[in-house]
Amino acid sequence: MASQGNRVIRVFVAGLGAVGRRFVGLMARQEALLAARYGLRLVLVGAADSSGAAVDPEGLDPLRVVAMKEARQGVSAYPAAGRPGMHVRDALAASPAGLLVEATPTNLRDGQPGLDCIRDALARHIPVVTASKGPLVLAYRELVAAAERAGARLAFSGAVAGGLPTVNIGRRDLAGSTVLRVEGVFNSTTNYILTSMAEAGTSFAEALAEAQRRGIAEADPTLDVDGLDAAAKLVIVANSVLARPAVLGDVEIEGIRNVTPEQVAAVRREGRVLKLLALAERAGEEYRLSVRPTALEAEHPLARLRPWEMGVRYVTDTMGVIYAAIDEPDPLPTAAALLRDVIDVCAGR
Amino acid sequence: MASQGNRVIRVFVAGLGAVGRRFVGLMARQEALLAARYGLRLVLVGAADSSGAAVDPEGLDPLRVVAMKEARQGVSAYPAAGRPGMHVRDALAASPAGLLVEATPTNLRDGQPGLDCIRDALARHIPVVTASKGPLVLAYRELVAAAERAGARLAFSGAVAGGLPTVNIGRRDLAGSTVLRVEGVFNSTTNYILTSMAEAGTSFAEALAEAQRRGIAEADPTLDVDGLDAAAKLVIVANSVLARPAVLGDVEIEGIRNVTPEQVAAVRREGRVLKLLALAERAGEEYRLSVRPTALEAEHPLARLRPWEMGVRYVTDTMGVIYAAIDEPDPLPTAAALLRDVIDVCAGR
Repeated sequence: MASQGNRVIRVFVAGLGAVGRRFVGLMARQEALLAARYGLRLVLVGAADSSGAAVDPEGLDPLRVVAMKEARQGVSAYPAAGRPGMHVRDALAASPAGLLVEATPTNLRDGQPGLDCIRDALARHIPVVTASKGPLVLAYRELVAAAERAGARLAFSGAVAGGLPTVNIGRRDLAGSTVLRVEGVFNSTTNYILTSMAEAGTSFAEALAEAQRRGIAEADPTLDVDGLDAAAKLVIVANSVLARPAVLGDVEIEGIRNVTPEQVAAVRREGRVLKLLALAERAGEEYRLSVRPTALEAEHPLARLRPWEMGVRYVTDTMGVIYAAIDEPDPLPTAAALLRDVIDVCAGR
Repeated sequence: MASQGNRVIRVFVAGLGAVGRRFVGLMARQEALLAARYGLRLVLVGAADSSGAAVDPEGLDPLRVVAMKEARQGVSAYPAAGRPGMHVRDALAASPAGLLVEATPTNLRDGQPGLDCIRDALARHIPVVTASKGPLVLAYRELVAAAERAGARLAFSGAVAGGLPTVNIGRRDLAGSTVLRVEGVFNSTTNYILTSMAEAGTSFAEALAEAQRRGIAEADPTLDVDGLDAAAKLVIVANSVLARPAVLGDVEIEGIRNVTPEQVAAVRREGRVLKLLALAERAGEEYRLSVRPTALEAEHPLARLRPWEMGVRYVTDTMGVIYAAIDEPDPLPTAAALLRDVIDVCAGR
């Protein structure tokens, strides 16, 4: 590998929020590891945020981009390379990107601008790594078909519960078996809120504020609280793992907005634990999908999730019952999930 | 996919013990699923056990092979195709196999006959799927290099804790991060024994007998009891996930042979749980490897494993802490792990 030199991957990063900027940081932080272990050299040829974009075919300095974002500057203020007001699609079109990392804010209404960015990249035969749920929830089958036609990979392991490899386990490790039931605590913010309320008597408002402070809550926290984020992830699991053409409207959704401290305490007195449970139950050849606050028995593995954990439990016919959980107290593992997908796309096998 | 027809994979199965025969059963049981979901048709062109072999380029009947094994017949009694006394290497050499599934009994002394079968297959550019630990423990680097030279896959996700995707998670889902610590309960037999002793007051002998009855204990149960099976799995994790050239001699091993009911009860009174813990702790750039009975705090996720469960906990630098567990009350999930690897090798991505 050393004698061949490293493979250069020109990366365009759309979105520099909590996850996007940490991915850019990892590009710098893991530079030596990426070269030594995987023979990869990632070059940041473009980046975009709400201020516009910055493009440089020779590569932007990832650490400079991160510093600017931490100083609350838009990336379009990047010297020379900055393009104030430039739309992300135009920046992507203007860049010699070999891979798109899509981390724009969740938009479950129309999936934009992420959806168009992904379409544009695939149309150019550019592989896409995304943690962005909107495009997958609104246009899963279209995007998978576009990727296949283009001969380009579309990877999204970071889209369902951050660094937790929910989709990877479901698709690769359960291959050849049939999933009978999926139970998930897919939303970190609501898990933190419910756990804090039950164990520390924290108020709903205080707990939500902590999740926002850590960058874990969605830019629009009602997505977390009203169960939409969890439902979006369940839809992605349904499409990618269960191979069903599900949409958000197929999910019965009840969030935690109306959960009171009294209810939490009452569940606790019964020896049970309240969690916002995403559930896919097999019914014949189909699955019933739901997200709702659910009282789990104390011994249920998901009942024991700590405040910043998320988990998934797959009940199968031939592969037993597989459970996985992640402790993710900040957005870094989600950014790391984007990086593992980049490695998989560029150097997998 | 339907218009292209299914891809035919000629499979040779070496070893028809608890796992091998269940894999053969899955070839039949999952025939429709394999065709519909993955466009694959598996044909059993040869199989071998301690009686000899059976070879048929047109394909043996998997269900007939399973029935013979359940009736305690050797596969060499298969009508017409049977070859009493034929050595597995000769049977493999004589068969038009396109893929070797290697499930011979664990042999940590010299890895045979599995090791030579794998070498032979790779030399013929035939991909290998194995659940057999001996070859990987004794010759990991040689086999990986041989696979690379041959341009053939060597897959072994079923070799470390049955159906639990320990290696897959470690290699694929933690790619780009650094593993700081691995904690595993990798041996189902000893977990069942310790859990039964602690919770039900079952004697060591009774619990071991139950593990043997279910086909979960190794053919030679001292491999389980003396910690060798767990150590072998830790060595495989060290080589494949931690990228360290470890051998069995690098592991400090203490099994559960000397664990008494009194010790189990004493640990329990302290509010802790005794588990046979496989551990890799990072020390500088290297890892210290050990397997020993360990008293875990009650809240440790591995402490809560139920009798037939196995689990792994990966502590990383950028991917948080990821935990996975499987409930595997019989050997079927290990056979299903062989099948998922076959799918990955033949139809992956």
